[in-house]
Amino acid sequence: MAEAEKVRRPGGRSARVRVAVHTAVTELVAERGYGNFTIAEVADRAGVAGTSIYRRWKDLETLSADVVSAWLTTHAAIPDTGSLAGDLRAYADGVARDIRGPQGPAVLRLLVALSSGGEPGLRARDAFVAARGEQLQEMLDRAAARGERAPSGSSVVDFILAPLYIRALFGLPLTSEDVRTQVARLLADTRHAAERAGGI
Amino acid sequence: MAEAEKVRRPGGRSARVRVAVHTAVTELVAERGYGNFTIAEVADRAGVAGTSIYRRWKDLETLSADVVSAWLTTHAAIPDTGSLAGDLRAYADGVARDIRGPQGPAVLRLLVALSSGGEPGLRARDAFVAARGEQLQEMLDRAAARGERAPSGSSVVDFILAPLYIRALFGLPLTSEDVRTQVARLLADTRHAAERAGGI
Repeated sequence: MAEAEKVRRPGGRSARVRVAVHTAVTELVAERGYGNFTIAEVADRAGVAGTSIYRRWKDLETLSADVVSAWLTTHAAIPDTGSLAGDLRAYADGVARDIRGPQGPAVLRLLVALSSGGEPGLRARDAFVAARGEQLQEMLDRAAARGERAPSGSSVVDFILAPLYIRALFGLPLTSEDVRTQVARLLADTRHAAERAGGI
Repeated sequence: MAEAEKVRRPGGRSARVRVAVHTAVTELVAERGYGNFTIAEVADRAGVAGTSIYRRWKDLETLSADVVSAWLTTHAAIPDTGSLAGDLRAYADGVARDIRGPQGPAVLRLLVALSSGGEPGLRARDAFVAARGEQLQEMLDRAAARGERAPSGSSVVDFILAPLYIRALFGLPLTSEDVRTQVARLLADTRHAAERAGGI
């Protein structure tokens, strides 16, 4: 995904600096945890001047919020396979791939750290939650438009995102079988909820 | 629970200092996030000398790991109501109460922050995961001994702990209805898994 982003962008010094600085932040979060490094260390690792980081991002929290936003917009594309089951499987696989990837756990931990910080962190968290919610709703609306019985967005959070995120955050194993099980449970719950409600 | 702990303990200056220092850490995590305060600030808020914190805990990470361990052992008692459904409801209510409490979200965020840090943090995380697992297994074993069909510990994580923790970590709402829904979903999944396996 990072490669695809590089190809799409015309480049230029500013874009290259952003990628280098973002990579330095996620590496430092993965190695030491948020709060255990300074802007000077980010600059050093990215090979840029500390002053240019301060000029562009103001402080570490604003920079970290930008890292989270950038990661979200370049990842977790919403699938369109033609069926709800296919979409949910592809979506869950994509989320699992992202959070198992080199940056995933660090970005999730960064998001949690920012959630208890100041305004830029809370804005980053709210933007993340809103963006994930909109992506999901789009997919569920397409299913409903096809006449399929779709789960609510919060059911997708409960059955797919929460179990996957918790495994990544606490360093628990996450297998492809776990991902398939969660999708199957969500589809079964959607079916049973419809039966209880006297629907299809 | 903090009150009950105080009553149980004979007290003494050492125990009082520990409570004051732990409270200062959770307050500072809640207000600023992990990494945005120093041992000197903890000492100041707890009304103790910084040197006595260094002597007892060595560094902020070790102190934070101690906070997480203490919180876990004084919270989330394992219920024994006589039925699996009753136990799961009481357990889920207890977890929800703890993470909605004044210290809950701060302690969970601290645990996530420590999970990407050094050795004391990883040990605290592993101890937390192991202790939660053992508590749960005890409850599920009792159900099996009564002849009830019990879910696996990892199903309890997927259906109860993960959705509740994610709501607390990302600042999403968590209602009593959400908690009841998750317990009902777990019980339904356990029933369906047994039916698929040709069991009771």
